[in-house]
Amino acid sequence: MTMATATKRILLAHGGGGQLTDELVADLIRPDLDNPVLAALDDSCILPTGIGRVAFTTDSYVVQPLEFPGGDIGRLAVSGTVNDLAVSGATPLGLSLALIIEEGLEESTLKRIIASVAATCHEAGVNIVTGDTKVVARGQADGLYINTSGVGIISPDRQLGYDRVAPGDTVIISGSIADHGLAVMLQREQGESIKSALHSDVAPLNSLIDAVFQAAGDGVAFMRDPTRGGLAGVASDLAENSGLHLTLDESCIPVRPETLYAAEMLGLDPLDVANEGKVVIVVRPDKADRVIKALHGHTLGSRAAIIGELTGERDGLCELITDVGGRRIVQKPYGEELPRIC
Amino acid sequence: MTMATATKRILLAHGGGGQLTDELVADLIRPDLDNPVLAALDDSCILPTGIGRVAFTTDSYVVQPLEFPGGDIGRLAVSGTVNDLAVSGATPLGLSLALIIEEGLEESTLKRIIASVAATCHEAGVNIVTGDTKVVARGQADGLYINTSGVGIISPDRQLGYDRVAPGDTVIISGSIADHGLAVMLQREQGESIKSALHSDVAPLNSLIDAVFQAAGDGVAFMRDPTRGGLAGVASDLAENSGLHLTLDESCIPVRPETLYAAEMLGLDPLDVANEGKVVIVVRPDKADRVIKALHGHTLGSRAAIIGELTGERDGLCELITDVGGRRIVQKPYGEELPRIC
Repeated sequence: MTMATATKRILLAHGGGGQLTDELVADLIRPDLDNPVLAALDDSCILPTGIGRVAFTTDSYVVQPLEFPGGDIGRLAVSGTVNDLAVSGATPLGLSLALIIEEGLEESTLKRIIASVAATCHEAGVNIVTGDTKVVARGQADGLYINTSGVGIISPDRQLGYDRVAPGDTVIISGSIADHGLAVMLQREQGESIKSALHSDVAPLNSLIDAVFQAAGDGVAFMRDPTRGGLAGVASDLAENSGLHLTLDESCIPVRPETLYAAEMLGLDPLDVANEGKVVIVVRPDKADRVIKALHGHTLGSRAAIIGELTGERDGLCELITDVGGRRIVQKPYGEELPRIC
Repeated sequence: MTMATATKRILLAHGGGGQLTDELVADLIRPDLDNPVLAALDDSCILPTGIGRVAFTTDSYVVQPLEFPGGDIGRLAVSGTVNDLAVSGATPLGLSLALIIEEGLEESTLKRIIASVAATCHEAGVNIVTGDTKVVARGQADGLYINTSGVGIISPDRQLGYDRVAPGDTVIISGSIADHGLAVMLQREQGESIKSALHSDVAPLNSLIDAVFQAAGDGVAFMRDPTRGGLAGVASDLAENSGLHLTLDESCIPVRPETLYAAEMLGLDPLDVANEGKVVIVVRPDKADRVIKALHGHTLGSRAAIIGELTGERDGLCELITDVGGRRIVQKPYGEELPRIC
């Protein structure tokens, strides 16, 4: 017997948002579907409509547990989609809400999650404008899966993209990293009984991002929210897709002590861990201080910091200067360190 | 002991697209999310953007089996979303594709389904413009769930809605009913070994609907694709929401003999069964013949027929004149006769 004819099957790690996810999409999904709009593979696509630029994005949420310290799947779904629109420079017009419910879900749980969807929409100033509800039998889902898609309008003065990133640009993060992934992970490991000091950072960032545009106008070159794959994923993509060299300074990257402790306990690098209320911003160097000031003036940006710089060595690599002064290349996480984190 | 404190849980029947689904949405989901755009509860919502009317729709697909005679979950997802846009008068701009994959799905199955997504997109002249991929562990999904959302532009001369429906209007169906639901159901009951004569009608209808607009212009008052809940669901909604009386003539409603036979075998009323390639059209009576001619000139409309009329008795009821000349009220199906049909 040989293994040569073994059936190839999808692995859990294919869903981690790392290199394996990229491979799955590149090998099995993209080839048949290719077109110029999809090819950008950004968090939102931009539809040229003849009546302006319309941003359009989709995400399914499969987080486990459904409720975790600092949030729940409803807040996560609304925030994630609002943030995907906002980082592409769009003002959200409306979101869709599609539920896949496992038979037997308690109605009270669904009620709490829908109330959280509503509260997060209110916070973001956006509405659920269309929806869908499906129910599958026990054992065919895990409580509840939510898909939110979003539509937004991009004003003509907001032009973002890898192609606008230039040597000398400054890289900013809007606050401490890795809080979402580690809060969910700890909750899952320890169960509800243990009160953790860690809370997810999940939040809609559109008003924070509006403040950034007001501060720096067309000095903003690029934005991305570091969700699955973490800051490492966004930073390595940024270097690769801009073709520039990105140097990050580890000592400048804000990490809460309790988050760092949890990461060490679980053997995880905070750089690889998902955030749900943070944004990486690339700005012209002369606008960096104004952006930091604007972020610090917003409740969601109080710990914002300059964490790196892009330079003209065209190697497409991201390098980290470690706390102790060493240097290492930052790579996109490979597979699924943290399954079902969003 | 009493049952008074029993935990209320979601039932499979809550997902059937009938009265129970309406109740779930009305009781648990809508109250917290209410806003004027969502309130319409149409297949697509219409976003007033300041730059024209943008249609936006979402649907999750959980059909079982993933591949069935006449189609698969990929063709179903693309057709369903294209059709939801088209029946609101919109020309599709682009679709999203969000996959929730169960660990262990064969890569070859995924590849076939993605190829089918691509082929159906090509047939409809639309692109997948953004996407998302999640993987969950074995037993947390059932092979593959797909969400497709869609964005389209509604041209100013296409005004559809319950409020445009008037006494005297003619009701048309674009072809034979109940083929999708019964093809999927038979496949599930009999397994792959038995070759069934039944094939799903799943198809993108945007070019057929364009032909209807070309034939009748603003004589078209309303359109809806009779998916979950079947023709009975669309007809009862149409009567209720227009406030008029709708009379359907059973002898005029096209049903294939093999479909009728399968329905009788399974104890189902074809009126209640899902279609995925049909549209119900309400037109001014003087345009009905032109619309029928246009439909007959299209491969997807060869069996189109006039099936009923709206009249001024303002009782909001749909009445069926049966084959044998009796009369009965058509009600929206209650729950889940056919689970996971789309």
